[in-house]
Amino acid sequence: MADLKCRPFLFPIAMKNITDLIEHLSSFMTEERATLFENILNKRTRHVTVVLEDLYQPHNASAVLRSCDCFGIQDIHAIENVNPFSVTKGISVGSRKWLTVKRYQEKEQNTLKCLNSLKEQGYKIIATTPHKDDCLINELDLTHKTALVFGTEDKGMSQTVIDNADGFVKIPMYGFTESFNISVAAALCLYEVRNQLIEQKIDWNLSQEEQADLKLEWMTKSIRASAKIIEKWNSNNVK
Amino acid sequence: MADLKCRPFLFPIAMKNITDLIEHLSSFMTEERATLFENILNKRTRHVTVVLEDLYQPHNASAVLRSCDCFGIQDIHAIENVNPFSVTKGISVGSRKWLTVKRYQEKEQNTLKCLNSLKEQGYKIIATTPHKDDCLINELDLTHKTALVFGTEDKGMSQTVIDNADGFVKIPMYGFTESFNISVAAALCLYEVRNQLIEQKIDWNLSQEEQADLKLEWMTKSIRASAKIIEKWNSNNVK
Repeated sequence: MADLKCRPFLFPIAMKNITDLIEHLSSFMTEERATLFENILNKRTRHVTVVLEDLYQPHNASAVLRSCDCFGIQDIHAIENVNPFSVTKGISVGSRKWLTVKRYQEKEQNTLKCLNSLKEQGYKIIATTPHKDDCLINELDLTHKTALVFGTEDKGMSQTVIDNADGFVKIPMYGFTESFNISVAAALCLYEVRNQLIEQKIDWNLSQEEQADLKLEWMTKSIRASAKIIEKWNSNNVK
Repeated sequence: MADLKCRPFLFPIAMKNITDLIEHLSSFMTEERATLFENILNKRTRHVTVVLEDLYQPHNASAVLRSCDCFGIQDIHAIENVNPFSVTKGISVGSRKWLTVKRYQEKEQNTLKCLNSLKEQGYKIIATTPHKDDCLINELDLTHKTALVFGTEDKGMSQTVIDNADGFVKIPMYGFTESFNISVAAALCLYEVRNQLIEQKIDWNLSQEEQADLKLEWMTKSIRASAKIIEKWNSNNVK
């Protein structure tokens, strides 16, 4: 499991020190940039997360990442059973840089391990596919942490997802076509879920600690020679 | 202007005869198929239409057609200034067959001629791009017939659209990325507009005549050797 953790350091930093380091790094950024980070952080959520099972078309994966960023979904879980998770930069327009992508590459029961790991973190697994027990996406109960699973192009999601899902959602459709393109389906679900999170007044914000971690990560990616700045700050401040 | 008209005959057929012909053709279809046509026709609309300005990536055009079919939008206007309108069959999953695509290929003022033609038909031109006078897509007033214009990939829509638009809409965004992929943007707008049409109780249905025309067109596409059947029926019935 190649886990890209938020906290991008090899040495431990206490919360108090994180706050000081962020303060220090702020002086290397424009005020405008700092405000942008702040505004976006306030909209980021891990209450809803996205799971992509074995997408094989990079333009689809890229478009999903772009939509996740647009709708403030921080974490993406990429299950790689057969196909490596791959992104087309032109389509993702750099969104991957700001997201937390966790890749699953276990040789056995890869999908199941991903789902179990999410369940252990308190997520309900919601398969985005029509099913006898489905509901419309705008009717989805979001009081629990929710992992929306999207299946591979053409074949849809695996039986493992269907067997282990806590619920099923579908998007209302009125035509001959019986399914949406995967990147379109993901965007529609995230749009609706974002609206519902706001309407249902659920506590979906990142914790203060998560926000600090993420801000620090974004700062290190934005500031030239940030590694050296942090190294110097660390030797002066962390005893 | 290569206009694909609904009524697919070279000879005129009066409304009374259209109804008789539909009745006759129904005997060549399963009841299930006829019911499907009926259900979809009841959801089809021309109250909202989609204008695509110079898309160059067939997978985007295809995904937009698929979304139009899914959300019951019957007409698509393809402005071809530089790029021919092209569809990838795998992605459109046959949706084009059921839609009315009007292509604009004038050598001069092609975009303007398309917009003017729509205005003459009573459409308000709504550019889907941020603007000082924009509103959110869920706040769009749909009491008038509405043409939603989507610009080309990368560069967005032309100044001609912006100068001639009656209004502007944007999709709410919460991340670093400042725009959606075109096929995603179109799907999100159509999803929201479809919801609003239902909520706002606007009369968006096709007229009885439009429904009959479209049903006949779909039947001719669905029934093997329909041209011969119609020719025979015509020689027996239309005096």
